[in-house]
Amino acid sequence: MSQTRGDVWSPVITPFGADLAPDTRRFVTHCQWLASHGVGLAVFGTNSEANSMTVEEKQHLLGTLVKGGVDPARLMPGTGQCAIGDSVALTREAVAVGCAGVLMLPPFYYKSVSDEGLFRYYSEVIERVGDSRLRVYLYHIPPVAQVPLSLALIERLRDAFPGTIAGIKDSGGDWSHTQALIDRFGGDDFAVYAGSERFLLDTLRAGGAGCISATANVNPGAIAGLAASWQAEAADERQQALNAVRDLFERYPLIPAMKAATAHFSGTSDWRRVRPPLVELEEARATELVSALEEMGFRMEGLGESTHG
Amino acid sequence: MSQTRGDVWSPVITPFGADLAPDTRRFVTHCQWLASHGVGLAVFGTNSEANSMTVEEKQHLLGTLVKGGVDPARLMPGTGQCAIGDSVALTREAVAVGCAGVLMLPPFYYKSVSDEGLFRYYSEVIERVGDSRLRVYLYHIPPVAQVPLSLALIERLRDAFPGTIAGIKDSGGDWSHTQALIDRFGGDDFAVYAGSERFLLDTLRAGGAGCISATANVNPGAIAGLAASWQAEAADERQQALNAVRDLFERYPLIPAMKAATAHFSGTSDWRRVRPPLVELEEARATELVSALEEMGFRMEGLGESTHG
Repeated sequence: MSQTRGDVWSPVITPFGADLAPDTRRFVTHCQWLASHGVGLAVFGTNSEANSMTVEEKQHLLGTLVKGGVDPARLMPGTGQCAIGDSVALTREAVAVGCAGVLMLPPFYYKSVSDEGLFRYYSEVIERVGDSRLRVYLYHIPPVAQVPLSLALIERLRDAFPGTIAGIKDSGGDWSHTQALIDRFGGDDFAVYAGSERFLLDTLRAGGAGCISATANVNPGAIAGLAASWQAEAADERQQALNAVRDLFERYPLIPAMKAATAHFSGTSDWRRVRPPLVELEEARATELVSALEEMGFRMEGLGESTHG
Repeated sequence: MSQTRGDVWSPVITPFGADLAPDTRRFVTHCQWLASHGVGLAVFGTNSEANSMTVEEKQHLLGTLVKGGVDPARLMPGTGQCAIGDSVALTREAVAVGCAGVLMLPPFYYKSVSDEGLFRYYSEVIERVGDSRLRVYLYHIPPVAQVPLSLALIERLRDAFPGTIAGIKDSGGDWSHTQALIDRFGGDDFAVYAGSERFLLDTLRAGGAGCISATANVNPGAIAGLAASWQAEAADERQQALNAVRDLFERYPLIPAMKAATAHFSGTSDWRRVRPPLVELEEARATELVSALEEMGFRMEGLGESTHG
């Protein structure tokens, strides 16, 4: 993976059919649309409803993507599960197909676990996968996982697995924490990604790598555009424009809202579907969101059109 | 399953080998020891480190138990996983081998989910299993899962699946909540279990079914004894004796402490092992716990001896 500053990844939303099975054709098309806008594919993230899918479903989707022509060097699947055996199985598959790296949640059932326990978990997975090509990006998302990753733990993991522990996604929503990560660890050998494009410019200016952000599913071109030109004069204005879109989506439950927007702009109402325990956006709220998006001139250009052949 | 008041279940601790694989022989032996003390086997619960195991590992253990002669009518495996597909697979297996019921966690990755989303999750699992023999015991454990089950949700599930929604385990640690569950739902068709034997007598007196409690792994005979004679005069004293043992274990991380005690009384040091992210009790603390237990005359009679053949 490039450690060049200006790296944007989308935690790809997952399309489901009427039977709730992943729609592989729509998934490949959406990934190709995202890639065509210059964002990498952090499939199987929180926004992908990845923990609502079985390991087998994810392995199948990953294989389909690579067979479908998606460049594995632009793939960073989420592979952290509560059970070490599951994490190992999915991580092995990611390494085997040549993914750039994996984004790894801590085990998230038990709360208030020790750094020692989390260190053992990550060590066990890395050692069992046992492949020098493995690049692990740690996934710090205390608001959802409720299991934070401390700076001391990150340092210990980097020391134990240099070259393998390659970065972190900080979805804590607290800029001072992202800044602390960049100050302490950021550099060519450790990529710090903000968990929202709201912090994209701050992250790049501070020396971080970029962002892995939910709304890169719906606004990929503009986010990747700022990341590519963050040193240009208009950067602050572009950041404000990104924030305006983000603000709008954040008025709604984020995953259902992104799916509602994708359904509208692709002309495929099936996109609205989510897996329980999530619930799709109500019709009226979806209409309200779409109106507000159109009012601000927001588009998802080329969505719903095949980007290959 | 008997809805007789005075029902005690142990969320069975899981023995792991040096490679962290479940030790099936030790597992069967421990289950038989527990059953011989009159407690049911709520395998694959929080205290079983069940979410640190793959579905395949749990299916294999369940099959081994039944083949090993454990009565499936005394089995209530935990089968609630984050992914519907995983919950369905494990629940189907439990029904197929004749388990009394299953204890079902809500999906626990996403937080602040709606009752509607949780209703859809449970409905989807129940409908996909599609077996009239299925008995679902809901698992309310907000301190760990961070996803509570509201009274309104329980009512809606009971209405939608009468006969299938058969009870609840309340591990919230708040007696007034357990009492509210009993007052509203408790009866022959809905078993309310306290999540700790600390509330056993209160639960039985209020009309609840009994308890499903961690420390029934180490103190099964005394807990089952009180449950069987809760109307006797000495009940309050017996409750106090149970509490004294519980108090001692609660001074330590509970799962590692129960495993340390089991290791000591069975003479099998391998019992101390836990899976990451948990960490076993330090040697010095284990020694301290065991000394305190011996001082109070605590024993795990017959542990480590084969109970069959």
